[in-house]
Order: sequence, then structure tokens, then C-alpha cells
Amino acid sequence: MADEQIKKVSIIVSKGSLEGVYPGLIMANGARMEGIEANLFFTFFGLEAIIKKKMNKLKVATVGNPAMHMPSMLGMLPGMSALATSMMKKEMEKIDIPPVDEFVEMIYDAGAKFWACKATVDMFHLTKDDFCEQTEDIINVGTFYELAAGGQIIFT
Amino acid sequence: MADEQIKKVSIIVSKGSLEGVYPGLIMANGARMEGIEANLFFTFFGLEAIIKKKMNKLKVATVGNPAMHMPSMLGMLPGMSALATSMMKKEMEKIDIPPVDEFVEMIYDAGAKFWACKATVDMFHLTKDDFCEQTEDIINVGTFYELAAGGQIIFT
Amino acid sequence: MADEQIKKVSIIVSKGSLEGVYPGLIMANGARMEGIEANLFFTFFGLEAIIKKKMNKLKVATVGNPAMHMPSMLGMLPGMSALATSMMKKEMEKIDIPPVDEFVEMIYDAGAKFWACKATVDMFHLTKDDFCEQTEDIINVGTFYELAAGGQIIFT
Repeated sequence: MADEQIKKVSIIVSKGSLEGVYPGLIMANGARMEGIEANLFFTFFGLEAIIKKKMNKLKVATVGNPAMHMPSMLGMLPGMSALATSMMKKEMEKIDIPPVDEFVEMIYDAGAKFWACKATVDMFHLTKDDFCEQTEDIINVGTFYELAAGGQIIFT
Repeated sequence: MADEQIKKVSIIVSKGSLEGVYPGLIMANGARMEGIEANLFFTFFGLEAIIKKKMNKLKVATVGNPAMHMPSMLGMLPGMSALATSMMKKEMEKIDIPPVDEFVEMIYDAGAKFWACKATVDMFHLTKDDFCEQTEDIINVGTFYELAAGGQIIFT
Repeated sequence: MADEQIKKVSIIVSKGSLEGVYPGLIMANGARMEGIEANLFFTFFGLEAIIKKKMNKLKVATVGNPAMHMPSMLGMLPGMSALATSMMKKEMEKIDIPPVDEFVEMIYDAGAKFWACKATVDMFHLTKDDFCEQTEDIINVGTFYELAAGGQIIFT
């Protein structure tokens, strides 16, 4: 059905919630399994997915997402986000999707590259040491466009 | 102005709020009206847009969206999301954008194809019977990339 | 590393929060700095970024974003969104990212084009006069696809 194979995907992860980070990781993993080159570029709150101290503490958003089918009042209760997060993690484990740190390692070992957005790094006063070891480099938008050339850009 | 026509769009719908689902449907509909091939791939909470029992119960998010210009406290009140949803639906009807189920049918009849994300289907313990009849199949990311080859990927 | 240079990006801005609008503006600015043609298409709540009376009143969402690391209860307090917004603006100023109106002017002067989505304009009962002077025109999805041909579509 395809006119031509996809050769490369460059996935931007811009959100820091668990359900905001996983789609990008799953698409990068799927790309590598198909032999497609994959770059992951983390920006704004999405940056937390590759910050050592935060990558395994991402949570599901229980307010502001009507698809949670949870009254806003209830979603606000302390602990509700932790509960939804724990439930989602269990369901993901069942379908063999690992926690963020392990998933990053697995996707990295499969050949994907991880990049941090320079503007966000500066804005949040971070340094290279804050990032997990799979992080290739801190780059600006111009460099991202160079890396993305010849492929698909997917902003998540 | 265009160097070459767009031949195909593959639109990923990942959010389950009304304002999260409509942009993807509108872009798919617009594509078909231009003779552009269109695939819609529903993942994470976006899957609700093609689940029979849920597709017409999607709501506008009244909290977590500062553009609603509604104090968070007010947005939390039971009924506020229903009110905003009803208002948006009325405005959409005025500009001839139908409810989700009718819109899906209309876009399907115009030749677009609807796909459900296998990982999400498994995670939420769904089966093919849960989906509206326009749903072509449940597919994984690899198959999505094959379908998307030769076109634009748009993640919404 | 690139097979071929990116010639054009068409960036859709669909969210109206400050952290929802800036990534699109930053990517458009970065594109122009690399000599890449850039179109910005504003739809749904993202439209506020080019509405004269609203473009400088965009706020950070403090609820519904677990990456804010703020208990939902606290995020709800009147004034919290204003506080987070003020903090983000200060940090952005430090890294030379200007307020939305100045940034729009700067990106426009660098050669990017700004477009408003017709369906949203109709839905919100707006007219051309509501938009900042950099707004080229109000267009529908079909025209957007024509403009976007030969480049990358990035939905933010």
C-alpha cells in the first residue's frame, strides 16, 4: 500500500505526564523494530522523561482529561493521580511496556538517539549531568531540523 | 505555491476530550474533500472517539486549559464540563460540523480509513466489538508506519 | 546526516496555554533562522495566540499537568496560574524569548506567514479585525494542505 518506505522519524516529546510521554516512546520503539531510524527530541515538560531524578516519577493527569471519566472534584483529591498512575503502569506491564527508564534504555539499545532541547535546558537551569546516560546531546531547533531532514517529524 | 501535492495524511488521535478529537476529524475530512488519502489512527484516550458507547459522550476539558478563561475553581464544579460541551456542540452544529458518530460516518463514507491502536486496545481490555463499524482493524505501530509511508504523519 | 534539507514547515498551533503556544513559535523561529520556509496555522484554542486582545494574556496551565509538580488542590488556587505564568515569562526573557506579541512580530519579520483557521473563526464568531496585523488570512483546511505541500506538517 505504501509508495515508499519511511526511512526516519524524529519524534518530539513535549509533555511531562505519563500518557504524554509514552506515545512518543512507543512510536520510537515501533520505528526501530521496523528498521526505521529514530530520533527523540525532548522539549518543555517532556524533558522530564530523560531527567534522571524524574523519569520514573511521571504521573497520569487526572484533572483536565475528561476521558478519565472522573469528576474533576474527585480527580483533585491528593492521591488520585498516584492511583491512576499505578493502575496505568500495571496495565502497561501486562502488555510488556516497561517503566520509562527501562524503556529508554531498551529503545536506546535498539539504536534510537535521544536529544534534549537547549532552550528548555537553559530555561529550567539544567546541565548535561541531570540527564540519563542515553542522552546524546543538548541541541537547538536548527540542529533538530538538520537531524530530521529526509524523514517524518512527529510532535507529541 | 506548492512544490508537489500532498497525497496522503495519516492522522493520530491521542486525546479523548472533545477539543482533542475534533481537530483530527476535521483534518481528515478536509483531506478527503481535497482528494487526499486519509488514515485515522486512534491511540491512548483518543481511542474513545471510535468506541461505540463513548464516541458521543466526549466532553470539553474545563480545567487545565487556561484558554477557557474560566477560574479553575469554577471549572471544577460538577456540570461545568457538560455546559461547555453543550455550548461547543451548538457552535459546531451552526458551522455544519456534526456530532462525533455522524462525523465518523461521513468521513468514512468519503473514503477515509479508521484504525485502532493494538497496544491501547490491550491495555484497556477492549475487543473489536467495542468499536464502531467504520473501524477497519486493530493494528500495531509497525503496520501504522507501513500505511503512513509516502504521506504526512500528523499527531494530534 | 541528512539525506535532503527540509524546505518548508507548516506548524499548526491548537492549544491556548502559554506552554502550548511557545513550542510552535520557537519551531517557526528556528526554521526561519535556518532559511526554512515557515507557515503557522492557528486553530481551536491556539487561535488566541494571534488575537490582539488575548495574545499577551496567555497563561500556564497549573492543573492537569503533573509535570508542574504541584498538588492539584494548590494548582486550583486563584492566582497560582498567574504566578506560574509570571515565572515562566521571566525565565523565557532570560534566554531571549520575547512575549507572544513581540515574538509574533519578530517571526513575521523573519519571513514566516501566519494563518487563522476558518472553522474556528466561525465557531468563535471572530472577524479579521480581531487578529494581529501579521495575520495573512483566514483559510480552511484545504488551503492549508495546499500551503503545506512539499514540506513537513507539525501539529502542536
